[in-house]
Amino acid sequence: MRDVAVVGVGLSEWGELWGRSIRDLFVEAAVNAVDDAGVEPGRIEAIIVGCMTGGLFTGQEHIGALVADYFGVAPISATRTESACASGGAAFRAGLMAVASGYHDVVLVGGLEKMTDVDGGGATRALAAASDAEYEAYHGVTFPGLYAMMARAHMAKYGTTREQLAMVAVKNHLNGSKNSHAQYQDAVTLEQVLGATKVADPFGVLDCSPITDGAACALIVPARTARRVAKGIPIRVTGSGQASDTIALADRKDLTFLRSTAEAAKQAYRQAKCGAADISFAEVHDCFTIAEIMVTEALGLVKRGQGGPAVEAGETAIGGRIPVNASGGLKSKGHPVGATGVAQIHELVTQLRGKAGKRQVKGAKRGLAQNMGGTGASSTVHILEVS
Amino acid sequence: MRDVAVVGVGLSEWGELWGRSIRDLFVEAAVNAVDDAGVEPGRIEAIIVGCMTGGLFTGQEHIGALVADYFGVAPISATRTESACASGGAAFRAGLMAVASGYHDVVLVGGLEKMTDVDGGGATRALAAASDAEYEAYHGVTFPGLYAMMARAHMAKYGTTREQLAMVAVKNHLNGSKNSHAQYQDAVTLEQVLGATKVADPFGVLDCSPITDGAACALIVPARTARRVAKGIPIRVTGSGQASDTIALADRKDLTFLRSTAEAAKQAYRQAKCGAADISFAEVHDCFTIAEIMVTEALGLVKRGQGGPAVEAGETAIGGRIPVNASGGLKSKGHPVGATGVAQIHELVTQLRGKAGKRQVKGAKRGLAQNMGGTGASSTVHILEVS
Repeated sequence: MRDVAVVGVGLSEWGELWGRSIRDLFVEAAVNAVDDAGVEPGRIEAIIVGCMTGGLFTGQEHIGALVADYFGVAPISATRTESACASGGAAFRAGLMAVASGYHDVVLVGGLEKMTDVDGGGATRALAAASDAEYEAYHGVTFPGLYAMMARAHMAKYGTTREQLAMVAVKNHLNGSKNSHAQYQDAVTLEQVLGATKVADPFGVLDCSPITDGAACALIVPARTARRVAKGIPIRVTGSGQASDTIALADRKDLTFLRSTAEAAKQAYRQAKCGAADISFAEVHDCFTIAEIMVTEALGLVKRGQGGPAVEAGETAIGGRIPVNASGGLKSKGHPVGATGVAQIHELVTQLRGKAGKRQVKGAKRGLAQNMGGTGASSTVHILEVS
Repeated sequence: MRDVAVVGVGLSEWGELWGRSIRDLFVEAAVNAVDDAGVEPGRIEAIIVGCMTGGLFTGQEHIGALVADYFGVAPISATRTESACASGGAAFRAGLMAVASGYHDVVLVGGLEKMTDVDGGGATRALAAASDAEYEAYHGVTFPGLYAMMARAHMAKYGTTREQLAMVAVKNHLNGSKNSHAQYQDAVTLEQVLGATKVADPFGVLDCSPITDGAACALIVPARTARRVAKGIPIRVTGSGQASDTIALADRKDLTFLRSTAEAAKQAYRQAKCGAADISFAEVHDCFTIAEIMVTEALGLVKRGQGGPAVEAGETAIGGRIPVNASGGLKSKGHPVGATGVAQIHELVTQLRGKAGKRQVKGAKRGLAQNMGGTGASSTVHILEVS
């Protein structure tokens, strides 16, 4: 198996972008990634792009061919991957396999979602396709509702408090206020989070990640050719894991533990020959505040049940023991579903290069990205290190 | 790069199956594949499943996790691939990379589509997501219309006749009448095809592949372990290619040539160290009758412009120089979009094992499968050989 390195990363504009299309957003991110790497687009041999539901959001599937065409690199191979909100992480992993196998030497991994081109409840309906359509969505439960049930179970079992949930939002908005790319660059107070319009008890609107249009790209090559192919410091991918769980929440033995994340992390730690204690910082899937708490536990970054106290003690803040979501996370940076997993790779590379500016994690040597689909029916975990 | 072999294949029931769900259909195909291979499901390390648009057809995305859950193999890695109607071929190729890279030793590749759970124009609208949603579908053009334009261009340039188009349908329905798994097992006459209800000039309804519910699976392992892991004769995958083209037909220089298929074939022939003349038989993407004619040309199985005369001369019939779609093809066997590419692998394995019964191609030693998305904006080509 060939080792793989990231040699370039790029993002498009993120936000409510009614004037822009998915092809447009992808091309912006792709151009930024190849510019960052200093690699000619003509050297790209394949595109793998994560997208959750181009069909329900925009009426457009066949996303791979679309973006290869508009980026001007047809007739290269172009495929979309989908694992709901972990579509970007799954694309990155598929890209690793494409390079590690020897099938391709230069692969552009991307992710995108255009979420605002639908009417009132359209986004909620489209996102519900990540849950069990027949046994969850059909009966009217939405994602805020599903995660609210997980939150209530976690609160009952471990004593996690409403305030601790809110502190995740406060921390991530503070981080996002230092990220010029974030959709929301405003710090929020604990009182604002606690007093926000209720969405699904215990969540107010500030416990929920937003609806976002955006794309992200990463260019990957074999590690041994990275310095020859591209300019700048390549970042090695040392660990990759992916796992699944029951699609319906009701089928789980324990609502408070993310089995797919724990399993994917185990694979990634094994491949990277390290453990949770060796991670400098992490970007994780905080689609709702409870998610970040449960993910840090499943990754072993904090002890089981201690995700709430850890955020309250500042352990996961920038400057804390294990900074989590220095970028602002999905909560503040935005969550264009299929792009999120690749944007996490963007943040890891930026931090590991020491180029994260006001949100830089000091001593960032080994970063972890965790991307999650549905209520955790899919998870990917990747570990990146300075070469 | 590790060589890969197929050790088991399976199909679900195919047809208009209003009483069955996508999870149900996938599990049937998966059980048949592992039974065929004699491999315990617990040995499967990853699932990669092709599906074009679970969202628009059924409201369900997150297809990978769904089928892993219902097949009872969670928490293994499970990802969906999508390249429109080539989603199954793309899944197969992603599976090859997963095994060739050393990431996984036993991978279940699948494909599925549940197309009949939508009302009147729902299927046509969902399928239009494989075209350019903004510049084709938005203006009302449908897939029969797009392929009809390609047919008219081919007729004008090469003198391909209306009768030759119809002969593709006659041949494939005759083949399908020998396939107990085909959705339509009825031979049709030239007069029936020519006289059928017009869909988009020059096509009648019998020039078009049907709407189908169904799934297909193939179990793949490293070639060197195939005889140890599974019972029966493993079939080696010796060539794989994938390529793209402009998503919109209007952006092509030549409507009569499938560039993505020609490019994917070039890659596959190179890897398999063979040429078109070395292929014993082929399963190709005959979504419309003109498609088979154009594909045989792009693959080099017949000369450019000679696809029509070749079918008229019986060259592509079972017993002809190069049998094409001995299974009945999409036209007669059915076309559950995401499943089609994997079902082609099923047919190749069945033929190469000499188990195709009344439709057996004599001397089948090297088979080729070509799967195509949209109007050819994506193509995959795979070459399989007896060990």
